[in-house]
Amino acid sequence: MGMSITVDAVARQAALAFPKYSALPGRERARFLRAVAGKIEALGDELVEIVMAESHLPAARVMGERGRTCGQLRMFADLIEEGSWVEARIETALPERKPLAKPDLRAMQAPLGPVAVFCAANFPLAFSVAGGDTASALAAGCPVIVKAHSGHLKTAELTAKAVLAAVAETGMPEGTFALVTGSGQEAGQALVKHPSITAVGFTGSRAGGTALMASAAARPVPIPVYAEMSSLNPLFLLPQALKNRWEAIAAGLHGAVTGGVGQFCTKPGLVFVLEGPDTDHFEAALASAIGGTSACPMLNENIASNYADRRGALAEHPEVTTLADGPEFQAGLFRTTGSAFIKDRHLQEEVFGPSTLLVLCETEAELIKCAGGLEGQLTASVHADGADVEIFRALQGQLEKICGRLIFNGFSTGVEVCHAIVHGGPFPATSDGRSTSVGTLSIHRWCRALCFQNLPEEFLPDALKSSNPLGIWRLVDGKRTASA
Amino acid sequence: MGMSITVDAVARQAALAFPKYSALPGRERARFLRAVAGKIEALGDELVEIVMAESHLPAARVMGERGRTCGQLRMFADLIEEGSWVEARIETALPERKPLAKPDLRAMQAPLGPVAVFCAANFPLAFSVAGGDTASALAAGCPVIVKAHSGHLKTAELTAKAVLAAVAETGMPEGTFALVTGSGQEAGQALVKHPSITAVGFTGSRAGGTALMASAAARPVPIPVYAEMSSLNPLFLLPQALKNRWEAIAAGLHGAVTGGVGQFCTKPGLVFVLEGPDTDHFEAALASAIGGTSACPMLNENIASNYADRRGALAEHPEVTTLADGPEFQAGLFRTTGSAFIKDRHLQEEVFGPSTLLVLCETEAELIKCAGGLEGQLTASVHADGADVEIFRALQGQLEKICGRLIFNGFSTGVEVCHAIVHGGPFPATSDGRSTSVGTLSIHRWCRALCFQNLPEEFLPDALKSSNPLGIWRLVDGKRTASA
Repeated sequence: MGMSITVDAVARQAALAFPKYSALPGRERARFLRAVAGKIEALGDELVEIVMAESHLPAARVMGERGRTCGQLRMFADLIEEGSWVEARIETALPERKPLAKPDLRAMQAPLGPVAVFCAANFPLAFSVAGGDTASALAAGCPVIVKAHSGHLKTAELTAKAVLAAVAETGMPEGTFALVTGSGQEAGQALVKHPSITAVGFTGSRAGGTALMASAAARPVPIPVYAEMSSLNPLFLLPQALKNRWEAIAAGLHGAVTGGVGQFCTKPGLVFVLEGPDTDHFEAALASAIGGTSACPMLNENIASNYADRRGALAEHPEVTTLADGPEFQAGLFRTTGSAFIKDRHLQEEVFGPSTLLVLCETEAELIKCAGGLEGQLTASVHADGADVEIFRALQGQLEKICGRLIFNGFSTGVEVCHAIVHGGPFPATSDGRSTSVGTLSIHRWCRALCFQNLPEEFLPDALKSSNPLGIWRLVDGKRTASA
Repeated sequence: MGMSITVDAVARQAALAFPKYSALPGRERARFLRAVAGKIEALGDELVEIVMAESHLPAARVMGERGRTCGQLRMFADLIEEGSWVEARIETALPERKPLAKPDLRAMQAPLGPVAVFCAANFPLAFSVAGGDTASALAAGCPVIVKAHSGHLKTAELTAKAVLAAVAETGMPEGTFALVTGSGQEAGQALVKHPSITAVGFTGSRAGGTALMASAAARPVPIPVYAEMSSLNPLFLLPQALKNRWEAIAAGLHGAVTGGVGQFCTKPGLVFVLEGPDTDHFEAALASAIGGTSACPMLNENIASNYADRRGALAEHPEVTTLADGPEFQAGLFRTTGSAFIKDRHLQEEVFGPSTLLVLCETEAELIKCAGGLEGQLTASVHADGADVEIFRALQGQLEKICGRLIFNGFSTGVEVCHAIVHGGPFPATSDGRSTSVGTLSIHRWCRALCFQNLPEEFLPDALKSSNPLGIWRLVDGKRTASA
């Protein structure tokens, strides 16, 4: 009960902040985002130590993630300071047109309203309080209410303090940002159901994400939910590539499976191999590397026990052979056949942690059929050299339909934060395959197109004024231009 | 049962067509869209007569709508022939970057897959078989299955024949287009639930739209639904404008309310007026015009009887006064007060037909409060002159939050088909306020972002090749350019 009152109060405050905050020029919001980055950096070792203590991540990883978090905030600051991201479109009037005059029409991307962001267990900084969704929503002009993750509450509170200090320092409206805590799903559900909330960002389990989707759809006014939920990130190893590079591929794959204790949404959890002369030594090299991987603490107890359960279920599957067990049964390598994979959709359930499943296919046709039966994924990767071209082309056709990012001769872990990245993909990888959670394109999840007809220059947003005071790129009468 | 078999067969065929159709160059799909327009025009008077007989629309309106339909098809042909609509983004690799190499990343808009389009009762051509959603989806690279509307089945069949003739003539894959008929909701529901369908376009009632939203959300793989459902298109008449132009405003509003027998989704159904010295003569002029409007046949029996019911309920509302009844109780003008409007949300229910409700407000504050209580709308319009500036600014803030298109000193009927139009708006005007159903921007409803990492030039789509063979506008390392 106390929790709902808090949620109600902050959501109302966010709704009051929205018209003021969204009306600020891009350069003012940019100044705010840069201040957030600066305040986070100014937390120094205190933040690093708290993240390490709460999430059991090593210092280098935490510092890297902090760098990415601040880099994202500054990337969005640059984007909105420049301003062309609003995709302004202008059609000038033709008052003399027959039979009907053409009105003056101007459209641009406009922010939706207050946004609820749920912290991710596995990225206590980069996908949490001041992470990607918060940065993109604040950049778009949406106030943000963050729901903390129980796994790293102190991290959340410390980061929120930095954001609120930046709000105060740069004079942003009260209610531009708030953090809500509270155990379990109560506060989260209250937030998603609150009438002032206009969109939701979430990174977590499929069960959690689909519950939020259902709540959002059942509201009197349904709202969009961007939930990143689960992905197996299938990897396809074609014969010529395996022949040429089996040792390097085994080493790279080992790193991708066990890096960060396998707790990345882009960890390759399915590896399809066409059986051939190089399968055995590749498999042996990978098994040896995975079997020799030291056990490390996982993010939290819940994740560790889920991993043990899922890993155990995979090991006991009648069509699955265990190829390697790391110390304390942590890292794991398993094997099944293409025909078993095609028959049993349970083999497509995510095992969140440092394990992967090799799927040995007897024929190219079986490999392609496996690809055709895959659910939606964040990524799909293929290693292909020279003579693999023909199989690659067939695979590309299948994989483009089900993934957000197709990787050639590489591994899916590592998500570059930039203009051209897509970190998203068809359901169940995400709730809404039209969107990305990483990179500048993610700003559009919090926007809708808004159009003005015959509005005098004085009432138009700067982005749509005829004089183009922001000097942004626009589509004017069908032509792209950065001039007035 | 027979119906579901048909739906299953055409949906499977569409899924088979998808990889072939979507892989065609834009100029080939453009040739197809232009052929569709040509085939529709070649149907000549036969089509016009069938539409007139089925939908009771006058010849001039039918010919106008045919012009718009063919114009839309050609607009999308131009868009995809030019090609920049895919929003290509390229980030070139930095293999030497420390601590991590930057990969080559390229992203573009890619089609979702087969799309289901539901014909609209009120636009037998422009929002039906070869209407806006069909044109934009085919342009994006999505096969289309159209569900006919029972009100104009022969129109649907004749138009479908034209589309299928264009499919054959231009060599499009079998399954690129199909029409399904059948009574009631059975075929429609089967279509929305079919696993091959990846998105839905719908124009119709709120009950119909929300039923489709629920079905789509309950699928094993949920899909987006773009339903345009209901809108009252509130119009605000400010004092100075009414003083200067009350006669012209009354005449224009009469035309907007009764044009097309009030069967446009953009008909102004709510007119807010600040009580003042000019209210009475404006009201009298409008009542006289509406009272003198001849009755005309509506689109179908169902729409006519719903209109009679809704109009009757409004007339009997205890806080509503009837100001004018046209012959046979068709066109109607009603009046209520701002305070009654604020209290009763039922006064926000759409009355689809030639009637409108005046809401007389006693104070500016009441007028602004009425605006703040409005549900999502396709459009909102304000007439404001000189001294009305201050009230207008306050209204603009409220109305931008709830509408897709804000109109100044004009009326909402008439939707220009162009780059800068938005025909959409927050729920319940549409199911998804992020989208438009009219204009070139509507192509994005059928797309998602797809990213390629380190893919060799030979495997990249032309839009993403380094050589830029299509000569399209792209974002390359953060810079907009149409060069290689």
